Amino acid sequence: MKKALVLLSGGVDSSTLLFYVKQRINVASVYALSFLYGQKHARELDAARWQAVKAGVKDHRVVDISFLGELLAGAGCALLDPDVDVPDLSELDRDARSQPPTYVPNRNMILLSIAAAFSETLDISDMFYGAQAQDEYGYWDCSDRFVKRLNNALALNRKKPVLIHAPFASMTKAKVLGIGFDLGVDYAHTWSCYRGADKPCGTCPTCVERAKAFRENDTPDPLS
Amino acid sequence: MKKALVLLSGGVDSSTLLFYVKQRINVASVYALSFLYGQKHARELDAARWQAVKAGVKDHRVVDISFLGELLAGAGCALLDPDVDVPDLSELDRDARSQPPTYVPNRNMILLSIAAAFSETLDISDMFYGAQAQDEYGYWDCSDRFVKRLNNALALNRKKPVLIHAPFASMTKAKVLGIGFDLGVDYAHTWSCYRGADKPCGTCPTCVERAKAFRENDTPDPLS
Repeated sequence: MKKALVLLSGGVDSSTLLFYVKQRINVASVYALSFLYGQKHARELDAARWQAVKAGVKDHRVVDISFLGELLAGAGCALLDPDVDVPDLSELDRDARSQPPTYVPNRNMILLSIAAAFSETLDISDMFYGAQAQDEYGYWDCSDRFVKRLNNALALNRKKPVLIHAPFASMTKAKVLGIGFDLGVDYAHTWSCYRGADKPCGTCPTCVERAKAFRENDTPDPLS
Repeated sequence: MKKALVLLSGGVDSSTLLFYVKQRINVASVYALSFLYGQKHARELDAARWQAVKAGVKDHRVVDISFLGELLAGAGCALLDPDVDVPDLSELDRDARSQPPTYVPNRNMILLSIAAAFSETLDISDMFYGAQAQDEYGYWDCSDRFVKRLNNALALNRKKPVLIHAPFASMTKAKVLGIGFDLGVDYAHTWSCYRGADKPCGTCPTCVERAKAFRENDTPDPLS
């Protein structure tokens, strides 16, 4: 594969994906795309920038779509709305977990469709998305089925169809992390915590999942 | 149907759709959404605003996603790039017509995915899209198949799935216009011309198609 684009949030999964694409898929020119969408944890973008430089990507763009914060005000989204607290994972009951307050309405379809347009512009036909199996519990737009159905729509493009690859879609976060250790990913320069304060809170859903993944790899998290 | 959202560009098809949804589908509260995406013919948005007021929509938002112009620079898109002229329809050969220079990379998936997020936020489960059959020649993202496949993806949403309706997808523009005459749509306040100058150019693809649709209805175009 000559060229590929990686969606890079700066978290564990997409940072691992970046190095996976570079080293395992053996892509000559890797492009990375990140989004400022009004998320409270916009500091994840510093991590994204660091990883993009480290991986030696050809081009890394951070697209400002923070208009989403205003447009989706009223959705009760804990990642966007200053008046809605990010919950601890332990506060979420079973029903809430199927689409938790940390779900951003249709976010991933928006990000992927912009990324597909950018790929098309650069004559890139392969795009990589860091969805992993563990997120599927709460986010329909991280599921393998979602990727397949979106690919069905993108395949209709008559001249430059773009294909979304989600190589981690059937893996746990612990498994992804294990791959990253093999690839030499530096997790000190990743960011997960939804609360986005100076230090990870340790109790929000993504902090708990990150801690679990490190524990299952018998490795300390450099951020904790 | 209690609530619906209409994607409103300010052209013939979507302006007709707005009144169709209001009167034929008999929706109590209609919301409209328009986009400034860097198009040369941004004056279509004045028409969209006029139609939204005339139709008495509950809320009309114009979302600024003009970052697309910069992100997609280099795509050779005649609607976005000041260095690429909008072609006359007569200049386009058969191959060019299957995805002409006036095609904006993946634009409609981007617009529809943002619109779905906004709908979800407002608890709207029905969204209307003015794709008509005649545009399918050049735009894969106006086809009925595209709408169906995108709906397949959106249907995975576990709590608030949004369905895209495209009631004109199998109709010609002339047929859509005929419906609009019955509904009393005022086409003096619509805009089609891609060149976006003070007056419609009369020769770009959308001007030619608009003229043909009026001619087939034996009615003069108030803009010409």
